[in-house]
Amino acid sequence: MSEPTYTQTRQVKIIRNEALLEKAERLKPVLIEKQAVPTRLVDVQADPNAIHGWKVTGIGNPEELTHRALGKGDSVIVDFGDHRVGYVSFNIVSVGSPPDAPLKLKLTFGEMPVEMAEPFSSYEGWISSSWLQEELLFVDVLPAAIKLPRRYSFRYLKLEVVDSSQKYKVSFQDLNVRTVTSADGAALQPLNHADPLLQKIDQVSIRTLEDCMQDVFEDGPKRDRRLWLGDLRLQAIANYETFRSNDLVKRCLYLFAGLPDERGRVAANLFIEPTAIADDTYMYDYSLFFAASLYDYYEASGDQEALEDLWPTARKQIDLAWDYTSGGLVNVQSDWWPFIDWHPDLHKQAPAQGVLIYALKKGIRLAEALGGSEGEQAAVAWKKAVFEAEKAAIEHLWDESQGFFVSGEERQISWASQIWMVLSGTLATEQNQTLLLRLLEQKPKIGMTTPYLHHHLVEALLISGLRTEAVAHLKGYWGAMIEDGADTFWELYDPADKSFSPYGNHLINSYCHAWSCTPTYLIRKYNL
Amino acid sequence: MSEPTYTQTRQVKIIRNEALLEKAERLKPVLIEKQAVPTRLVDVQADPNAIHGWKVTGIGNPEELTHRALGKGDSVIVDFGDHRVGYVSFNIVSVGSPPDAPLKLKLTFGEMPVEMAEPFSSYEGWISSSWLQEELLFVDVLPAAIKLPRRYSFRYLKLEVVDSSQKYKVSFQDLNVRTVTSADGAALQPLNHADPLLQKIDQVSIRTLEDCMQDVFEDGPKRDRRLWLGDLRLQAIANYETFRSNDLVKRCLYLFAGLPDERGRVAANLFIEPTAIADDTYMYDYSLFFAASLYDYYEASGDQEALEDLWPTARKQIDLAWDYTSGGLVNVQSDWWPFIDWHPDLHKQAPAQGVLIYALKKGIRLAEALGGSEGEQAAVAWKKAVFEAEKAAIEHLWDESQGFFVSGEERQISWASQIWMVLSGTLATEQNQTLLLRLLEQKPKIGMTTPYLHHHLVEALLISGLRTEAVAHLKGYWGAMIEDGADTFWELYDPADKSFSPYGNHLINSYCHAWSCTPTYLIRKYNL
Repeated sequence: MSEPTYTQTRQVKIIRNEALLEKAERLKPVLIEKQAVPTRLVDVQADPNAIHGWKVTGIGNPEELTHRALGKGDSVIVDFGDHRVGYVSFNIVSVGSPPDAPLKLKLTFGEMPVEMAEPFSSYEGWISSSWLQEELLFVDVLPAAIKLPRRYSFRYLKLEVVDSSQKYKVSFQDLNVRTVTSADGAALQPLNHADPLLQKIDQVSIRTLEDCMQDVFEDGPKRDRRLWLGDLRLQAIANYETFRSNDLVKRCLYLFAGLPDERGRVAANLFIEPTAIADDTYMYDYSLFFAASLYDYYEASGDQEALEDLWPTARKQIDLAWDYTSGGLVNVQSDWWPFIDWHPDLHKQAPAQGVLIYALKKGIRLAEALGGSEGEQAAVAWKKAVFEAEKAAIEHLWDESQGFFVSGEERQISWASQIWMVLSGTLATEQNQTLLLRLLEQKPKIGMTTPYLHHHLVEALLISGLRTEAVAHLKGYWGAMIEDGADTFWELYDPADKSFSPYGNHLINSYCHAWSCTPTYLIRKYNL
Repeated sequence: MSEPTYTQTRQVKIIRNEALLEKAERLKPVLIEKQAVPTRLVDVQADPNAIHGWKVTGIGNPEELTHRALGKGDSVIVDFGDHRVGYVSFNIVSVGSPPDAPLKLKLTFGEMPVEMAEPFSSYEGWISSSWLQEELLFVDVLPAAIKLPRRYSFRYLKLEVVDSSQKYKVSFQDLNVRTVTSADGAALQPLNHADPLLQKIDQVSIRTLEDCMQDVFEDGPKRDRRLWLGDLRLQAIANYETFRSNDLVKRCLYLFAGLPDERGRVAANLFIEPTAIADDTYMYDYSLFFAASLYDYYEASGDQEALEDLWPTARKQIDLAWDYTSGGLVNVQSDWWPFIDWHPDLHKQAPAQGVLIYALKKGIRLAEALGGSEGEQAAVAWKKAVFEAEKAAIEHLWDESQGFFVSGEERQISWASQIWMVLSGTLATEQNQTLLLRLLEQKPKIGMTTPYLHHHLVEALLISGLRTEAVAHLKGYWGAMIEDGADTFWELYDPADKSFSPYGNHLINSYCHAWSCTPTYLIRKYNL
């Protein structure tokens, strides 16, 4: 994800904890490299029924690439058969007279057909066009062995000879990608599900997770390529059910804990290169998820060292978050705003209240695991806080007449508010069931815009015993993405508006995105 | 230079002479590196009185670059104070929040203000746009140390932030160029001329030569960056008066001799990378210049080894050229066309006849230097050829009534025909004087388009005893280039049409070009 424009940039003072950062450094994974080659040559064509209006069709074997001579204005699109994250290399040879001018070559990488079809110059969204994966190369000497130094996230690659000369053309040889991931398939158990769609959804989820698992859990290998706490939390729980790379989760938690601001808050995301750097974006819900994620990690690993090392950070997030309440009710503040979802009109108070209670409850289990006077003291304080927060939620956010949680002065009824209040466990299971069935039936206008919130809906259904509805929604939503051609699951997917982008243009969306990888967790954890 | 479109590409069989190529390899020069830094920041503005309609004006000290923060759409033009050939490096640091998107940076290099002003996308000439010196860089991690791997020929560099993000800008530090040349100034004698314009012209000539002296004598470091025989001949004679890098001339002659076609012809030009390769372009006059250049080299160096090694190649060019005559008159053929000059309407027979006789006479001196029966035999044959060719020229090309040499059925009177027939020494000196004075007075319509032909005019004037006219022309032509802002002399310069380009657009012209460097030769050799 990328933060919206209304985020204020401010001078943040970071208090580095070198001991934690050193432990994170020692947990740096070794990347596993494999080679992948093109599977076919393709053409991209307009198709009103295809996602974004574009589809690819095969037009030749990859071997033909070697024999094709491309001159000025010629291009070819190569399909690597599946989503790939890695480093591309190829050889270029000249055909005709000796090359009497440099070769000007444009490369365009795309996760989706639309990236092969719509010119990147048409992009006018509000986040940087530099995310669009392209290169302009000038090759002075042929033959040339090209090893591109940047990592790309793609399935398709368009090779376009912008100019050569009247005397020579070029052919491409040995085109390949050295893929990288830190996910080791050794721990992965086959699913063998009776339902082929769930089987397929599980497999695509795992590919998504795998391609996002690099030096850290990245949110998306195309964009933003960094470590977001909200994505990490979901990647981690998917990982416990699949690759079980617990050390990678640990590394990420230590990185966040190593770079708090002067108030002790963890950043919403970290940059990893050239060194770990906290972004100056702070999110209320994401900070609270540090505590939740540490509890999930402890539960999966039993790692006492991490519990003790990271406890102060987890406690700090909850205590600070509690300071942003009055009378047990979250005060949404612009200096620590909750993300929740990308919906532009979403009122955040009620869902943030849900997140707070959810995190407090995970925090209590964490405190109990820690034990000692410190743990006990925190557990007591947070139980009191849960009581107050739940009471306040019922008193101020629950609308008995409508049967929904509401948010703000205009008493907004959103999907997000219901989902997070269910996940908070404020109501009894039976009440949650009723609430969720009402939600599914009445479909309030303020809907869900991301797979991230769809995940939380499915999990809310599951913990409320609405298994049938959960499976139906999971299959409906992620299955539709597969139907629309997903090799990996997408950052954004609104079945009612398939070109939706919170960034102003679907070209910039990430089509392999961490927070969309959770079906494998939901399927495996809940034995769907 | 670049060959025109009507050149036919054909399959050429090259007979490699490894012994000669090995000697060439051993003569490979060590490049001398120096560092140059920006001298100021500039702006480019429209000015109808400036060359191409553009002039630069200083707007700041180079130190300001470090303190300027450039965001999306911002650019800055840096002036390196003089023409530079070399490798550029700089550091980029971010300003503001941590960089949350790659930096998309466009670099535009220019020898002339026009390259900073007119977008390269406007170029529609017939030779490759890939010669226009630009780069599009995506920098994923900041700060970054950028070392561009390609060599550029430039004075100006535009740094343009195409995109960064809303959260950060960038500054540039330590911008510098590591210049390269194989010209060693140690042998260079100061001129100290009383005439400041001749002094300046000499200096600019030497800078031009210096920047073209690389691994071989290049025609132009911007374009085409290769070894053309016609340029080599002029660079060599300028070199004998200045840097005296005789081994570099020798290396180039061995390279040409090492890569003849199956008929024994030397190519008009060679590519040097990845290995020495003969271009499939053959030019009648350029081939003959191999013999002339070998004689010049022998005269400058007294190198007996080179004379003996390269004699067979020189002889072959002359003998083959003679085969393209009938009745002593050159038959211009499309498979071995004479270049002479870029004028599109120039009829080539008469000037080619001049070149043939000129080369035969140099060949005779070469044969006499070689001696032995081989030398004697060739000298005798070529003296007979000179006699026939001169006789044929007088009979068929000289128009007594008009007092000019004519060419072709339409009896075209061109500057080139007169110049080359004077240089051939067919007429007596007094007749040449009269002819040249008539030429200067009557100014035939088929004029001169290149400094290459202007050089030959000045030398024709000098060998005909028209010293005043020679100096006047030299100062008028090359002086005007300086007046128009030349740091190094240009490939093309037509004072009547200053944007003339045989390639369809002045952006692609080379503004540091070998064949324009000869004033230092003319001034020093003839003590002007």
